Amino acid sequence: MDLELLVNILDLAGTFAFALVGARIAADKGLDYGGIAFIAAVASLSGGTFRNILLGQRPPWVLYSWLFAGVAIAVLITLAMKRTTPVGRFALTLDTIGLAVCSVSGAQFALTHGAPFLAAVFLGLIGAVTGGLLRDVLCQVEPVLLHRETIGTSCLAGSFVYVTGDSLGANSGILALVSGLVVVLVRELSIRFDWHLPKVGIR
Amino acid sequence: MDLELLVNILDLAGTFAFALVGARIAADKGLDYGGIAFIAAVASLSGGTFRNILLGQRPPWVLYSWLFAGVAIAVLITLAMKRTTPVGRFALTLDTIGLAVCSVSGAQFALTHGAPFLAAVFLGLIGAVTGGLLRDVLCQVEPVLLHRETIGTSCLAGSFVYVTGDSLGANSGILALVSGLVVVLVRELSIRFDWHLPKVGIR
Amino acid sequence: MDLELLVNILDLAGTFAFALVGARIAADKGLDYGGIAFIAAVASLSGGTFRNILLGQRPPWVLYSWLFAGVAIAVLITLAMKRTTPVGRFALTLDTIGLAVCSVSGAQFALTHGAPFLAAVFLGLIGAVTGGLLRDVLCQVEPVLLHRETIGTSCLAGSFVYVTGDSLGANSGILALVSGLVVVLVRELSIRFDWHLPKVGIR
Repeated sequence: MDLELLVNILDLAGTFAFALVGARIAADKGLDYGGIAFIAAVASLSGGTFRNILLGQRPPWVLYSWLFAGVAIAVLITLAMKRTTPVGRFALTLDTIGLAVCSVSGAQFALTHGAPFLAAVFLGLIGAVTGGLLRDVLCQVEPVLLHRETIGTSCLAGSFVYVTGDSLGANSGILALVSGLVVVLVRELSIRFDWHLPKVGIR
Repeated sequence: MDLELLVNILDLAGTFAFALVGARIAADKGLDYGGIAFIAAVASLSGGTFRNILLGQRPPWVLYSWLFAGVAIAVLITLAMKRTTPVGRFALTLDTIGLAVCSVSGAQFALTHGAPFLAAVFLGLIGAVTGGLLRDVLCQVEPVLLHRETIGTSCLAGSFVYVTGDSLGANSGILALVSGLVVVLVRELSIRFDWHLPKVGIR
Repeated sequence: MDLELLVNILDLAGTFAFALVGARIAADKGLDYGGIAFIAAVASLSGGTFRNILLGQRPPWVLYSWLFAGVAIAVLITLAMKRTTPVGRFALTLDTIGLAVCSVSGAQFALTHGAPFLAAVFLGLIGAVTGGLLRDVLCQVEPVLLHRETIGTSCLAGSFVYVTGDSLGANSGILALVSGLVVVLVRELSIRFDWHLPKVGIR
């Protein structure tokens, strides 16, 4: 499978998912149309932007203008729904899909641009979690979506599986699928069973 | 007109205007001399820095050391005035001029470095609003200057006019003037008539 | 002395010192293992990352994977200690060493990559203070470590001495030592004698 195409398709899917969740949270917080579009853009585009800049590349949205369409459609859907009910299970699922997709696309992008093993693993993580982090900071929310340790751990696991598989010569299409499933699985299980990482001094 | 020179002159004017407003707000918030210089530098230099990095270029202040003079003079003027009265109409006007100037220089810079249409429009916006956003976050203020939707809308309009005009082959000097006036006009009108973008669920 | 090697050794020492302080503060704030590792990484790696990106270079941790070892060892030491007592004199000293080391390595790195005088001075400052600033913002602390004006002034002094000495043709090994001592000295003296920069309007 063409790796550049794989990254592009995954980026568009991830952009749409993150923009939809971001627009929804912004609408819930009572922001106006401009604020909703701003949060949707930050939530969906900042992860790839940061990842690319760290690798000395231009952001995805400078390279591919069609990514703006993913954001615009997500914003229009949110405005058309005119709802302000709390973010629910559907948004949570979308968010998980976005995280899975961006962990894989980030790790692949880093490998394509010559990042060594560990750096590629962490660039996959950074590409996946940056958008949600900035979104929550800007919207000043701390909700279900912000099980940060769960998000970090699951994206790190998926990115690690992808980079490891790639270094072992695995088929990139199958590897992308498996790594994405690892992200989804770790996140879903940790939410269901309320897994947490331990803290220092509290036993 | 030489485009590189146009961008440089506009950047210096915008740097001075933003540094003066930033230093004034920092002084009003009771920061010491170091904090005032820091806020003035962030307010005036971060927009161009972010814009250039997104295009794979070094920040303006790494390329042109004389930009520091713009910041230093603005800080010295602020310290010499020794006043701590609230930021008034004059600072608001300076801020608007800075926004107009930076929207145009950002859009022109993006086009010069090969950004496509939509990316250039948004890079003009980013170059103009980043400094004020960081300034307000760091100073923890939410004053007259922070009609964010107004700022965003007016800079976006000016940047859009510039990029559109450029793609139609308009003279860049005249185009810079017209686009800057669009920013000033949209901002002044929206302040005078208290225009706001609508919100979801509130009709 | 090989300048590239000098920057690398200083970066590793600074990374370890900042990671240890960051991990300790995160543990004190009750963050879990993931949060401690995250804060340690941000505190120790973001300064060099920002510095390098501003110069159009990849971050140190993309270029040199062994920097992760510095962070990992600092985190493991923190977890093994299992203590949550407030950050004391030892961490403050470590922080000062990290600041001294990073001011020098940042200024040297900027000069190596063609930054002019003033830009190199400020890049030394940025490389030294960014990590601590982000660490404190993310941990929401405002403790002894956050004598920001002191930190800024001392790093600026050290960076200025380094860049000035380099432009005068001084030996880089000796210059690194002298500049580092300037940072330590200015910081220690300002803490001991409670030096502060003046504020506007308060006399």
